[in-house]
Amino acid sequence: MGGPQTVDDVEPFLLHLFADRELLTLPWQDVLGKFIAKRRAPKVRGLYDAIGGGSPILRWTTAQGQGMVERLDALSPATAPHRFYVAFRYVAPFAEDAVRAMRADGITRAVAFSQYPQYSCTTTGSSLNELWRALEREGLEDAFEWSLIDRWPTHPGFVRAMGEAVEEGLQQYAPRERDDVLLMFSAHSLPLSVIDRGDAYPQEVGATVERVMETLGARNPYMLTYQSEVGPVRWLGPSTEEMIRRLASDQRRNVLVVPVAFTSDHIETLSEIDIEYAELAHELGLTGFRRAPSLNTRPAFLDAMADLVRGHLVSGDLHHAKYRERCPGCRNPSCRQLPSPAVEPARALAVA
Amino acid sequence: MGGPQTVDDVEPFLLHLFADRELLTLPWQDVLGKFIAKRRAPKVRGLYDAIGGGSPILRWTTAQGQGMVERLDALSPATAPHRFYVAFRYVAPFAEDAVRAMRADGITRAVAFSQYPQYSCTTTGSSLNELWRALEREGLEDAFEWSLIDRWPTHPGFVRAMGEAVEEGLQQYAPRERDDVLLMFSAHSLPLSVIDRGDAYPQEVGATVERVMETLGARNPYMLTYQSEVGPVRWLGPSTEEMIRRLASDQRRNVLVVPVAFTSDHIETLSEIDIEYAELAHELGLTGFRRAPSLNTRPAFLDAMADLVRGHLVSGDLHHAKYRERCPGCRNPSCRQLPSPAVEPARALAVA
Repeated sequence: MGGPQTVDDVEPFLLHLFADRELLTLPWQDVLGKFIAKRRAPKVRGLYDAIGGGSPILRWTTAQGQGMVERLDALSPATAPHRFYVAFRYVAPFAEDAVRAMRADGITRAVAFSQYPQYSCTTTGSSLNELWRALEREGLEDAFEWSLIDRWPTHPGFVRAMGEAVEEGLQQYAPRERDDVLLMFSAHSLPLSVIDRGDAYPQEVGATVERVMETLGARNPYMLTYQSEVGPVRWLGPSTEEMIRRLASDQRRNVLVVPVAFTSDHIETLSEIDIEYAELAHELGLTGFRRAPSLNTRPAFLDAMADLVRGHLVSGDLHHAKYRERCPGCRNPSCRQLPSPAVEPARALAVA
Repeated sequence: MGGPQTVDDVEPFLLHLFADRELLTLPWQDVLGKFIAKRRAPKVRGLYDAIGGGSPILRWTTAQGQGMVERLDALSPATAPHRFYVAFRYVAPFAEDAVRAMRADGITRAVAFSQYPQYSCTTTGSSLNELWRALEREGLEDAFEWSLIDRWPTHPGFVRAMGEAVEEGLQQYAPRERDDVLLMFSAHSLPLSVIDRGDAYPQEVGATVERVMETLGARNPYMLTYQSEVGPVRWLGPSTEEMIRRLASDQRRNVLVVPVAFTSDHIETLSEIDIEYAELAHELGLTGFRRAPSLNTRPAFLDAMADLVRGHLVSGDLHHAKYRERCPGCRNPSCRQLPSPAVEPARALAVA
């Protein structure tokens, strides 16, 4: 998605977001989307002000890309040198910017690597569709050979990095309290209308949570909740906020929130969890409300990113088995494309 | 849950089911539950008539128990002899019958082993709560030392057995079609009100599906859907029936339904999938609609059951880390108990 780098970028960011029919549909979207974006902008500017004046997501994504390609060059010299390009959905650098830069650099083989571990049509789907459209708009449909890393909810390195982050989060509690801390894995929610059409997101998030808990070997109780629901439609639950309220009324003291569907800090961790939910929790007496760190540039996560790409190149796969499978009844013409699939199996290169 | 063995058992089965406030809550449940049970009975009797006059679930459960204890005696001679007792929730043998028989046989150490791989308060939770209440009613609170196998969504042996069943299901298609068959993992749905209070079921079902697909190594597209929703409340989707309709309208031909949240045949496989959904699918032109076999007495599944119990005994665990964690805000006084927990760690016995 990206995030506004300065408070001046907030309104254009929201305008792009509310215009995206693959993220959400509104009646008279061109008009109503603009209206909502403009009305929300002042409030959202305030939220960004409170976390330092902008989103750190470009900084984190760039550092992640850098850490990943350094490792990849060492892991897979046959496919080196590797380069990374950032394509955000609602703020620069856009997909256009990325493909233009790739063209200028003489790139011919490209892997579209979604930074959402779990697939949803509203996030990875929308971003990939926009990438294909951007190639068309730029006349670069045939400029690159593509393959996709479209989901990686249970990649062992990712799960290991998540386990490290949980362990680190638990260090914030006294040793005698640590084993009883409730781990509240929190993922961004989706409207039920998206779930009901067959979106893979909840099953993939569930798989991540269960795998992290198995690998962790921790004895802690845990649950999966969904955050950030807005507007009048019904969203997938249980709601993180509602669960915080109920846990407080149960006299629960220690809750560690673990962001499970984003890999770097952004408004939903720094503002929604760290400020909004934390204030609510403390007001309600849930005094041991803490958050596990986001993955950001954790070395184990950079290792995981490099391993994901290396494994993908060695496999010769064009995408995950589920990528080609549209949600039943989907009529979005952009969906599940793969223009100019990589013809030369990367396998030969990677193991050469 | 159990199932009516003859059509005459249908009405008492439904009366028990609609009286269970841990499964569902109704206004004036004593009156309305009876009314609904009596009104539904004729239709449900018809469904059982169409699958041979009764549920095969006691037969399957007994055969599974027999296969399990035979294997356990060989796997874990230090804890032998092992015996099994069946406790259904809505039809005999009830929990009372089981604990009375255990007492008569001189049993002292007991493992309550839920036959639902994934935990829900409405299924495993309700059955365990009823077990604890039955012990009280019988004055047997202190007669046995208990531990629990309350969930096992990603047990490797279970996942392997599921993989075998999928492979066998795929054998129903011509070899050239096989890799493109859509695997539709179908689980019993739950009302959203249950999901919203923090039930672990969807994340555990999702984890099973993802693990089976990883282990299978199959390239097939797949999805997770939810079946058997009834009544006016909103249920967790996507709906199996709705997805069948949409897949048919997408001109999809080959869909293999894989029951993922039950381990033996019962009305939801033999009637709902094999008759109701199959008829719908064929009417709509989805001519390659098939079902993967239920686990029933598949040797790999009996091996898994024995391995689950052996692993549980060796671990010395009383239950899964999540068992003690009530859904936030839960006020059910029966919930998450463990009367007379096993004090003697079974570990010593099992590895002796």
